[in-house]
Amino acid sequence: MLNKSINMFKKRENITEIEEGNLLSPKFDNDGLIPVVTTCANTKEILMHGYMNVEALKLTIETKEAHYWSRSRKKIWHKGEASGFKQKVVEMKIDDDQDAIWLTVDIGNGISCHVGYRSCFYRNIPLGQIKDLEQIEMDFKERKKLFDPEKIYKNKPNPTKI
Amino acid sequence: MLNKSINMFKKRENITEIEEGNLLSPKFDNDGLIPVVTTCANTKEILMHGYMNVEALKLTIETKEAHYWSRSRKKIWHKGEASGFKQKVVEMKIDDDQDAIWLTVDIGNGISCHVGYRSCFYRNIPLGQIKDLEQIEMDFKERKKLFDPEKIYKNKPNPTKI
Repeated sequence: MLNKSINMFKKRENITEIEEGNLLSPKFDNDGLIPVVTTCANTKEILMHGYMNVEALKLTIETKEAHYWSRSRKKIWHKGEASGFKQKVVEMKIDDDQDAIWLTVDIGNGISCHVGYRSCFYRNIPLGQIKDLEQIEMDFKERKKLFDPEKIYKNKPNPTKI
Repeated sequence: MLNKSINMFKKRENITEIEEGNLLSPKFDNDGLIPVVTTCANTKEILMHGYMNVEALKLTIETKEAHYWSRSRKKIWHKGEASGFKQKVVEMKIDDDQDAIWLTVDIGNGISCHVGYRSCFYRNIPLGQIKDLEQIEMDFKERKKLFDPEKIYKNKPNPTKI
């Protein structure tokens, strides 16, 4: 089960306050999570898409280092704990209805993706008419892995789930 | 109920194929949705965070205009239908485990947020020690609304839910 910490942020009471107010009042889904998009402060590219629970959000604000909720490992995930590639938070934003977070982070020359690429988004989906939905061939935008995941993560299980 | 169209994309069978393969094999959650982050091709800022179902993903690929699944209205949402601010897809990426999409779009001088700001992410969360979780005061990064939502949307209900 997910670790649903107590949500003590401002209670969501009316839409004008949520959209136009200045108090943080995030919406967590039925699993106690809020989606988070993380971009690189230098390149502006999206590095990853993850989730936070109440605890991860509090830790991120207070430590200024990105913490997520790992859905595969079912625990708080201090990004970079295993790989060393920590994410220093430069800026943190929330959207209009306060149900998504945008983190801008500094990773220096670091890497974000457990597969070994800098960004998790290393493949392009081709646009235009689809001939066969089962055979949509993507292009790799990043070809070169920046580290060998087997060396970095050793015997840790792969977080990707089928 | 959500409109779960039939998922005829390549079946997710093994992790190496999902992470390192070139065939599109997206993961939809229990509600039949995949999260989507949309950035502006010009400014590189994140405009919005939304969701697609199978049908919205197919429509986006084929029409090269962003289509989402509206969770509040429970229907396919051709972005810009009501406001006129359509999103032309410049690039579309998927992440390592194929459970999140990054759309880069051209909106010209248009607007993305139903509240009237250019980006939905117009407020910054302050970093550092939290004194009172109920009273975290955010800064507005965008001050000026670019349109009057009441004029554009007339009597349409606000999509934000408490």
